[in-house]
Amino acid sequence: MAQDIFESSDTIRTSQPLRHAQSVALDGPLPLESGGVLPGVTVAFETYGRLNAGGDNAILVCHAISGDSHVARHDDADEPGWWDILIGPGKPVDTNRFFVVCPNLLGGCRGTTGPGSINPATGKPYGPDFPTITIGDMVEVERRLLDHLGIGRLIAVIGGSVGGHQTLTWATRHPDRLRGAVALATSPRLTSQALAFDVVGRNAIRRDPHFYGGQYYDQPHGPTVGLALARMIGHITYLSPEAMNQKFEGDRLHPRQEAIEFEKTFSVGTYLGHQGTKFVERFDANSYVALSFAMDLFDLGGTPERLVENFRAARCRWLVLSFSSDWLFPPAQSRDIVGALIRNNAPASYCEIKSACGHDAFLLPDDFDHYGEMIRAFIQNLAPAPRAPNPGPDEPPGPTSIFHERRLDYDRIIELIPPDASVLDLGCGTGQLLARLKPNGRGRLVGIELDEEKILGALQHDLDVIQADLNEGLRAFADQQFDCVVLSQTLQAVKDVEGVIAEMLRVGATCIVSFPNLAFHKLRRILGEEGRAPRAYGWLRDKWYDTADIRFLSITDFEDFCAEKKFHIQQRIALNTEAGTEIKEDANRDADLAIFVLRHDKKCRA
Amino acid sequence: MAQDIFESSDTIRTSQPLRHAQSVALDGPLPLESGGVLPGVTVAFETYGRLNAGGDNAILVCHAISGDSHVARHDDADEPGWWDILIGPGKPVDTNRFFVVCPNLLGGCRGTTGPGSINPATGKPYGPDFPTITIGDMVEVERRLLDHLGIGRLIAVIGGSVGGHQTLTWATRHPDRLRGAVALATSPRLTSQALAFDVVGRNAIRRDPHFYGGQYYDQPHGPTVGLALARMIGHITYLSPEAMNQKFEGDRLHPRQEAIEFEKTFSVGTYLGHQGTKFVERFDANSYVALSFAMDLFDLGGTPERLVENFRAARCRWLVLSFSSDWLFPPAQSRDIVGALIRNNAPASYCEIKSACGHDAFLLPDDFDHYGEMIRAFIQNLAPAPRAPNPGPDEPPGPTSIFHERRLDYDRIIELIPPDASVLDLGCGTGQLLARLKPNGRGRLVGIELDEEKILGALQHDLDVIQADLNEGLRAFADQQFDCVVLSQTLQAVKDVEGVIAEMLRVGATCIVSFPNLAFHKLRRILGEEGRAPRAYGWLRDKWYDTADIRFLSITDFEDFCAEKKFHIQQRIALNTEAGTEIKEDANRDADLAIFVLRHDKKCRA
Repeated sequence: MAQDIFESSDTIRTSQPLRHAQSVALDGPLPLESGGVLPGVTVAFETYGRLNAGGDNAILVCHAISGDSHVARHDDADEPGWWDILIGPGKPVDTNRFFVVCPNLLGGCRGTTGPGSINPATGKPYGPDFPTITIGDMVEVERRLLDHLGIGRLIAVIGGSVGGHQTLTWATRHPDRLRGAVALATSPRLTSQALAFDVVGRNAIRRDPHFYGGQYYDQPHGPTVGLALARMIGHITYLSPEAMNQKFEGDRLHPRQEAIEFEKTFSVGTYLGHQGTKFVERFDANSYVALSFAMDLFDLGGTPERLVENFRAARCRWLVLSFSSDWLFPPAQSRDIVGALIRNNAPASYCEIKSACGHDAFLLPDDFDHYGEMIRAFIQNLAPAPRAPNPGPDEPPGPTSIFHERRLDYDRIIELIPPDASVLDLGCGTGQLLARLKPNGRGRLVGIELDEEKILGALQHDLDVIQADLNEGLRAFADQQFDCVVLSQTLQAVKDVEGVIAEMLRVGATCIVSFPNLAFHKLRRILGEEGRAPRAYGWLRDKWYDTADIRFLSITDFEDFCAEKKFHIQQRIALNTEAGTEIKEDANRDADLAIFVLRHDKKCRA
Repeated sequence: MAQDIFESSDTIRTSQPLRHAQSVALDGPLPLESGGVLPGVTVAFETYGRLNAGGDNAILVCHAISGDSHVARHDDADEPGWWDILIGPGKPVDTNRFFVVCPNLLGGCRGTTGPGSINPATGKPYGPDFPTITIGDMVEVERRLLDHLGIGRLIAVIGGSVGGHQTLTWATRHPDRLRGAVALATSPRLTSQALAFDVVGRNAIRRDPHFYGGQYYDQPHGPTVGLALARMIGHITYLSPEAMNQKFEGDRLHPRQEAIEFEKTFSVGTYLGHQGTKFVERFDANSYVALSFAMDLFDLGGTPERLVENFRAARCRWLVLSFSSDWLFPPAQSRDIVGALIRNNAPASYCEIKSACGHDAFLLPDDFDHYGEMIRAFIQNLAPAPRAPNPGPDEPPGPTSIFHERRLDYDRIIELIPPDASVLDLGCGTGQLLARLKPNGRGRLVGIELDEEKILGALQHDLDVIQADLNEGLRAFADQQFDCVVLSQTLQAVKDVEGVIAEMLRVGATCIVSFPNLAFHKLRRILGEEGRAPRAYGWLRDKWYDTADIRFLSITDFEDFCAEKKFHIQQRIALNTEAGTEIKEDANRDADLAIFVLRHDKKCRA
């Protein structure tokens, strides 16, 4: 059944051999979303690691437009795979534990049925008769392959770019078949700009006089110029402007001597000509058209409402990663996905990885230290391996009380939160508070954090954490989505105080806010007697010119503010953290830390 | 001599008639920078307004790659010009006052000699025999035209994109021929990314089988597919991703029915196909190749050092404008130009206009309200028209003293600055302080400001103002470039206090810093007695949660800070602005406003 790609009747003219690929003919015809039918489909794929007896340790990796099944080396002597950084023994996707499957895409030219395959009806390559295919069709082929391999529920589906489109489709169409989805550098649908580049590429191919309407397989040569042009355009979009400058600006007019039939004046032009020329040797123009068209048709929605609807069926846990310099699949599109997941109460984590590498970042080692470990932690959370006892929330803590290093406020905040309450923690750091709440109940716990390192820490604590800037609001969250929203010791670092509190009250039934009290008597004394900006040796230890704090307020200031803005205060807890006591009388003088509980109360707001 | 374009022997096959274009055959051959020679050059151009007797009221407008001489309507019945928003009676470039000349580019196809012109040596169009031309060659043709027209020193040269390249070339090659340069959406040279798109476009043209090596003029048709593809690519780069989404996302799969031979599935594809098809009707492929190659060869330097060297010769005043969403000529490139101008002590103003329109922003009315008025003010400064007395720095002032609305600190700061001193004012607003210094002497005065509206105000005060974020430092400025650097009432809104002060001391021999004193006794009392964050009714009138201030410090805090960082304090002036007195004793208690003079002193710094 499984056979070497060379023995397949489905060999593609333009493909180079994939040494380790197996191939299998799926049973029966494949009805397509476009209405057409493929009478038979062969899938070429590679596997890594071993499938366990239960068939439940598998991870599916989906490749992007010009990738293939050779995702990683099979052994040291093997050729490099395109995602060796991620997949292998001891790697984030650990092939000592997991069975990794990577199929070649339907419509491609690397062993799976595509336009260059023989059409059994004519005995000739399909060419222009190859029907329109979609990402959904590709996923259907992958699903049949998994059935064939005896794989039940996947640990995860992982993919970047068009691989991400397949991942999203898996999660929404086959919710019971995967525990987790890792979607990198992807989108709910292409931007108009990305679409535009694809259209120009396809126009270049189809209007190449050697395209012959797509039936060029028996011609001396095919639309090589058009395909090379399409690839050149694609290549520009995969790189960030920074990366291009770095690569070419030093030596702008001294191109390498390349045997190419394209303009060679500029280094960057020679590079593109080289890439285009190389690509033509290994890729079939009809496949490029078919795959890029499938990518362009992919559409999970262009409005928040449509996205929410289309992601509703998903049941898996999510890790969504974007890359800051990716302008082909810009981070805002990943945030759209995450927004829809949030609205559906799906367990999701998101981070925009700082990167100079553009769309290609997800394939490159440059930023892998961060996002590789995020994927490792995420998969570990899906399928915990026996390991040293969870270190728990024992990181060196930042100070909380203005005098103490310990987060004294956490004890009180935890008391305020009912078991099973759903909690959104704004500025969650590595998730110390949420990790302490976790054993309490079954309520949904979500952290918001800006810092990449801390997000990794929160993932390592098995938490769902969303990267966001509080000053930009909690737009992604629905009205009253959480029982409780917490802003602990973060208010004083927030620019848009009113906006953040209003958003908290919109999203949470109860809001808990803690902050240091500027009017604590020892702080008053510093200004009053020394004539200096108040400081202490705990939370307020940083100097006026390098503190992260930008707002200075007392308990009275906050109460005035709430009265002015009609924010309803339900409870106030004032602590003297140095003495370890709760202050009831004259709190604004004798407490250094305040915890306020605010209630959402529509009647109170204008 | 001047003749209608239709009568010119130089008529280009692909051009549409330009009704108002005149044309003139320049004397003698044109030696080119590439080493070649053009035996004769005809220039087609249009003019607006009247040249005065002295020949010194002219403004030269340079067009971009696919523009032409028809920059504005000649009368109400005329066809629209491509820059009607800018040029005309009463417009920012006021044709009631100025004589505007806009020539068609050398190498183009709209009347000026180009590859489609007849080669006198063969009697046939130049085609592939048209020599490589540069932006310098274009400017040389423009210079000869101005000589021919009797125009001496220009008021200004104005151009965007490749028009900007010409503007930069004018200013650096012919410094005595212009008083001012307005360079919009341009760069010292293309980014590698922009270059890459051009190369792909030229490859599409040259590899079109109907290119016939460039000699396609006697063929049934030329490289129309290649030229259309090049135009499609160009079009994508002219628009911002936001603008594309806005244009096409609502109706992604419902394209207009266009009679085009390109893919029509997607709205954006149909639009591009339409643009490409239309362009082929009016543009010559050889011209496109010649002009884009000239743009790509343009290079004023890729390092700050080379840029400084290449801009050294310039003598004019500058207005450099970039557009925030322009990714083809990104704002960072304009900042590179401005950096070189600053290093050369050239009088320059710069603003990055907030815009969603991409590279095309400079042609569109969307953001014109701001940058149009900036150009108007700049030209007014170059050639003042009789007008109502200058309103002077009488804007409603922000408060300065924590009790007063008037900028009491200015009087003292002005006393501290010697006549003829060069002054850099950080956070200059609309230039109130600089405008007051202006009558004092001849020292160079430059403002730094972030806000677009205030930059316009400063231009209207006839000042040079550079847009920059202080927290990103004063990188553009040289060590000890100014006698005096002022930071008045801005320190408390600065995030990187140490960085900004260090930069001030690097750039200025003397630094003047003023700020409100948190330890003023009335402020102490507010915290001490009321237990509230200190406020006053002047400068400190905003509440803790919505003030722009993010740093809170006393005179003592600042002195501690300077001691710790080894910043040398030369003088301290402490004012009680309520009483209008200077405080000598116990200033930290009795003064509400402090002015510090710091000196650059290498020995003091580690």
